[in-house]
Amino acid sequence: MRIVRYAVDGVRHYGELEAGDARIARFEGDPFTGLSPTGRIDKAGDVVVLSPLERPRIFGFAYNYASHVDETDREIPEVPVCFMKPSTAVVGPGDAIVYPADGELVHFEGELVVVIGKEARHVKPAEAHEYILGYTCGNDVSDRIVQRKESKYGTLLIGKGQDTFAPLGPVIATELDPSGLSLTTRVNGTVVQSASTADLLLAVPDIVSYLSRRLTLLPGDVIMTGTPSGVGPIRPGDEVEVEIEGIGVLRNPVVAENL
Amino acid sequence: MRIVRYAVDGVRHYGELEAGDARIARFEGDPFTGLSPTGRIDKAGDVVVLSPLERPRIFGFAYNYASHVDETDREIPEVPVCFMKPSTAVVGPGDAIVYPADGELVHFEGELVVVIGKEARHVKPAEAHEYILGYTCGNDVSDRIVQRKESKYGTLLIGKGQDTFAPLGPVIATELDPSGLSLTTRVNGTVVQSASTADLLLAVPDIVSYLSRRLTLLPGDVIMTGTPSGVGPIRPGDEVEVEIEGIGVLRNPVVAENL
Repeated sequence: MRIVRYAVDGVRHYGELEAGDARIARFEGDPFTGLSPTGRIDKAGDVVVLSPLERPRIFGFAYNYASHVDETDREIPEVPVCFMKPSTAVVGPGDAIVYPADGELVHFEGELVVVIGKEARHVKPAEAHEYILGYTCGNDVSDRIVQRKESKYGTLLIGKGQDTFAPLGPVIATELDPSGLSLTTRVNGTVVQSASTADLLLAVPDIVSYLSRRLTLLPGDVIMTGTPSGVGPIRPGDEVEVEIEGIGVLRNPVVAENL
Repeated sequence: MRIVRYAVDGVRHYGELEAGDARIARFEGDPFTGLSPTGRIDKAGDVVVLSPLERPRIFGFAYNYASHVDETDREIPEVPVCFMKPSTAVVGPGDAIVYPADGELVHFEGELVVVIGKEARHVKPAEAHEYILGYTCGNDVSDRIVQRKESKYGTLLIGKGQDTFAPLGPVIATELDPSGLSLTTRVNGTVVQSASTADLLLAVPDIVSYLSRRLTLLPGDVIMTGTPSGVGPIRPGDEVEVEIEGIGVLRNPVVAENL
């Protein structure tokens, strides 16, 4: 199932994409407390597609593809390298990534994103799939100048946490094997990242297990699994697309901040 | 006003402490959507005091007292050094800080905590007080071994984000000038940190302004403002107290993880 969150006449619904994405079968409820069919069909062209979650907790994994570790001149980390992005960073498909007025070097990072379906604590890798609702695309937008200054002191917030720095979408794909999906990022139509999730250093089951060993994952949490090589700058006027096999294309324009 | 969140017969309420903290005037609602008096009085001895917020977003500032920067052999940072702790790390007064089964060096950090009262974006320092509901005490519990390994790669999550690593409470004090409050941390009754919030490098109004320049602060968000010198280890069996003038004492036992 490919679950989409969308608005019709300002009212928000979850639905299931059907018929080559032309139609949406509207649900009542949400994927965490329960979805029930309404029998109502919306035309995909008549709705506004939203981020699949309103304001989720966002956990991120850094340096989780060897190809990206290489391009940053680092070594493979000794422990998983995790951070959080604030819920207010989330935007949906088509929404603007706002380029900060004082931004100097802002990068895209195309990523596979895990959506947690139920509360998870002390989960073994082999059981992780029971706690996963599905997968979506994400762009872990990063202000490298701020990131480097913060990271020098061993932390990270503003570098990856500014409003609009976490585009998510377009759908949550629930029947997907995450172990070998092709991931492609394009800027203005040019392919800039091309990888397989088979190359994740810490694979999806291990990611869920690792986090749940030390903290309680909640329904609706999202985990950005890391970016492969090819990261690079975006500027106002650009359009970024993150495409993952079986999920779809997350497309966002970059727009200058208007203070 | 000193606002307390508490449970009576398993039902949660906000209330106002009265009569030398012996009584609680029960409210309907919450401090963010609106509190209204019920006329009902609870005896403080009959209730369970909870963390003042259920599962808030938690922003933290590191290296925000010169005395603590000194003891870590660092220099004053070039930019504010921020991070997030997950909402699931929150516990209330009296709740256990769970010492991880594989923990080797876990530290307390007594801190003044700001509670945001309304949505804040692009707030000037002089206006920050309009967005602050009040203040509480916090303990930014930190697993130094994990923290150091993560920080080497410029991020921080598990080091400060494990379940129970963010005790908050006991009250939200709404009429408090945060510019010169005495802060004391005790372990098993012995004073280990003693400082004034006058020594914050980035003062409360600047903290709120800085974050709101880059991200949207939401009602109920909390900001841990940083710890002064004197941080040190805790072990199962210890009791930690963080006391701040005008707020009260946040007291938590340390208990070994039982896997």
